Amino acid sequence: MTTTGPSPEGAPALPHCPSAGEIAARVRSGRESAAEACAAALGRIAETEPAIHAWCHLDGAAAQARARALDDAGPHGPLAGVPVAIKDIVDTADMPTENGTPLDAGRRPQADATVVRRLRAAGALVLGKTVTTELACGAHGATRNPHAPARTPGGSSSGSAATVAAGGVPLALGSQTAGSVVRPATFCGVWGMKPSFGTIPRSGITRLCRTLDHAGVFAGSAGDVALGIDAIAGDDGLDQACAGRAPTRLAAALALPLGRPRLALIREPAWDEVEPGAAAAYEAAAAELGAEPLAPGPAFARAKAVHRGIMRREIAHAFAPWWGRGAAQLSDIAREHVEEGLEIDAAAYLSLLDEADAMRRAFAQIMRPYDAALTPAAPGPAPEGLEFTGNRAQQSLWTLLGVPAINVPALKLDGLPLGLQVIGRFGADAEVLRAAAWCAGRLQEARG
Amino acid sequence: MTTTGPSPEGAPALPHCPSAGEIAARVRSGRESAAEACAAALGRIAETEPAIHAWCHLDGAAAQARARALDDAGPHGPLAGVPVAIKDIVDTADMPTENGTPLDAGRRPQADATVVRRLRAAGALVLGKTVTTELACGAHGATRNPHAPARTPGGSSSGSAATVAAGGVPLALGSQTAGSVVRPATFCGVWGMKPSFGTIPRSGITRLCRTLDHAGVFAGSAGDVALGIDAIAGDDGLDQACAGRAPTRLAAALALPLGRPRLALIREPAWDEVEPGAAAAYEAAAAELGAEPLAPGPAFARAKAVHRGIMRREIAHAFAPWWGRGAAQLSDIAREHVEEGLEIDAAAYLSLLDEADAMRRAFAQIMRPYDAALTPAAPGPAPEGLEFTGNRAQQSLWTLLGVPAINVPALKLDGLPLGLQVIGRFGADAEVLRAAAWCAGRLQEARG
Repeated sequence: MTTTGPSPEGAPALPHCPSAGEIAARVRSGRESAAEACAAALGRIAETEPAIHAWCHLDGAAAQARARALDDAGPHGPLAGVPVAIKDIVDTADMPTENGTPLDAGRRPQADATVVRRLRAAGALVLGKTVTTELACGAHGATRNPHAPARTPGGSSSGSAATVAAGGVPLALGSQTAGSVVRPATFCGVWGMKPSFGTIPRSGITRLCRTLDHAGVFAGSAGDVALGIDAIAGDDGLDQACAGRAPTRLAAALALPLGRPRLALIREPAWDEVEPGAAAAYEAAAAELGAEPLAPGPAFARAKAVHRGIMRREIAHAFAPWWGRGAAQLSDIAREHVEEGLEIDAAAYLSLLDEADAMRRAFAQIMRPYDAALTPAAPGPAPEGLEFTGNRAQQSLWTLLGVPAINVPALKLDGLPLGLQVIGRFGADAEVLRAAAWCAGRLQEARG
Repeated sequence: MTTTGPSPEGAPALPHCPSAGEIAARVRSGRESAAEACAAALGRIAETEPAIHAWCHLDGAAAQARARALDDAGPHGPLAGVPVAIKDIVDTADMPTENGTPLDAGRRPQADATVVRRLRAAGALVLGKTVTTELACGAHGATRNPHAPARTPGGSSSGSAATVAAGGVPLALGSQTAGSVVRPATFCGVWGMKPSFGTIPRSGITRLCRTLDHAGVFAGSAGDVALGIDAIAGDDGLDQACAGRAPTRLAAALALPLGRPRLALIREPAWDEVEPGAAAAYEAAAAELGAEPLAPGPAFARAKAVHRGIMRREIAHAFAPWWGRGAAQLSDIAREHVEEGLEIDAAAYLSLLDEADAMRRAFAQIMRPYDAALTPAAPGPAPEGLEFTGNRAQQSLWTLLGVPAINVPALKLDGLPLGLQVIGRFGADAEVLRAAAWCAGRLQEARG
């Protein structure tokens, strides 16, 4: 059952997890029960969890009981019987949701978040909750990188990325306000995608930023990314950012033959921060994939500052309840977000929103000739230590622009995962995922 | 050609204007040229313009030249050869756009607004620009009510409503941030609709409020409302509020048989401000239409304050360039908006946005059993005088919620127009327009 080879840094052997698509097909056809799929997942998780600490709420007996209830109901749906992990800032009515902060210890939501409700409606088994950094932006959690336990798994969706990487479950939910899907995905070596802003409703997900928060998924393949997002996307009548937005049809888009996409290589916004080995790997991949260099230009010069200002001002607002209940129990990182955010006045905040709008329009313009663009997912592999979940300079521009961003776990550096980030035009979720799948296939062929 | 009877208050005789659908059908089939349709419109306008002052830029010779160019190109499209009026806050590359303020005297935009570009692409002839109040929220313009020249036409889209009411053109563009489509429509006795927030792109329309500005149309019938909105709706890749939004298909929706809608009667938010005669007319119409009383409840208690705060804070930001160039040339009304807005800090502003989100969710909930709701369009007919363009208490809640709002010019009080406002769930533009069309038909039958 274990498939990984010797680890460079004392990592546990990582079991192989079947894909979500395979599990669902087996469960729908009666070849496997949801209870069996659940037991298998719990078994895989038990192998690595002592070394990885991906889960913060995982009650095996309760999960088995829910799986048996699924079997009694006759499992159906695109995710029939598929065990999934949920980042612990996403509300679940039958499990705690503690937001990675002692201020929410024992918190039990009244209702499922829209995404959780929809996963269950698609037949999925919500197995448990995964470790998030504090309030999805503050102090790190207990999770370790499955490929190198002395290194960070990235954050804030640390546990979701780590359990997928460790073969625990095939599909996990995360969220991204700066780089919290793509960064842990590249560090852990899994697929991660945040689709365009407003594609997935955020109702019932703890808010950091009204204009920056995105939900996203982690999976072992492009196909599972598609299955996961298709199950949860589309207007729920509750999140204004999704108003009037149709569900995605990513799985259908992936089922069509993949042609060579028109690819750009965007080294910005922080190529100077990319480590030399990683830069060489990215350049080589871009050459292999036929990507054409594209410089975004001066319209994006203030992107980092604009993202930071909007993020901190909106966090300062959203965190007021925690601040009020116990500022002293917040980490220095979270306190700094709030304190810096409170300094930004309404005129400055509204100007930052205008700047972001202008960048979105400029990006739509420069991307017209391309189906997608390649860009670094991070400056390099996961850094050592758990304290620092990694530089967000490679991810935050795409979050600010609200465009689709995907980590393709296609590269390695010094035996550690290094992701290629594939991004694209706003709304072009299907085109960008198709391009990412084509890139993954092409790079695999090239490696022979 | 003139069709109205004697006027109660010295109004000019108002010529009959063929519908946009009729003109386009004639022009497409070659029975009439765009140049002939243009000349007819100019003739109708000449009859009433000295009394009404609906237009601020109208160059008949230039319009005729554009119409002949349309004829040379072979007129086609759903609005082939239809003369349309554009509120003077909407950019036109071939005419001034002066925003109703001396600070923009002689301003000539570089490019058409998306809505103007789309109207032209649909075959329409942009005849000229219509009077707006100062920056669409300040001092009134020169326009008078076509049914009673001593009364206000309403604002801010004063000229667009007035010229449609006066038989000048069959279709006109306006905008609504508080009540600037529905209010002039009810006072002037024409159809007016602002669809759901984000349905029509606002790119190239002078911004007041990023979260409240809506584009809308005035017309003589539900069918022309549909033709107009269908021509201009849908994501343009430039206005973030429209991201991912499909074009509307309102004309197709109206073409299906109209069944009796499930109607609510919502007297709030300011029933106590409705004049006794108007209240009686609304109650009688609701009874005739079988509407069931629905009290929105305490979730909406702060709607007026929330709308006002968001509007003023966003106006204070958006008007900074005019304020900087010449605060002394702004009216007291506009200055008051800015000064009050500047007092609202970032925390208060973000809290107001949260309150608005909560009201949107609550409204979606209470409207579930209904296709649409009836509510007063205004407290009564147009008030006397031009200074005050009318109370916005009956319109601003629906703008804040971002839901479709339609004025149905179905009632009369003391010989003056009184509109029935039909509103509905967010995104239900087609259902609400169908309900409005059914109501209009039913009330016409009832009056025999």
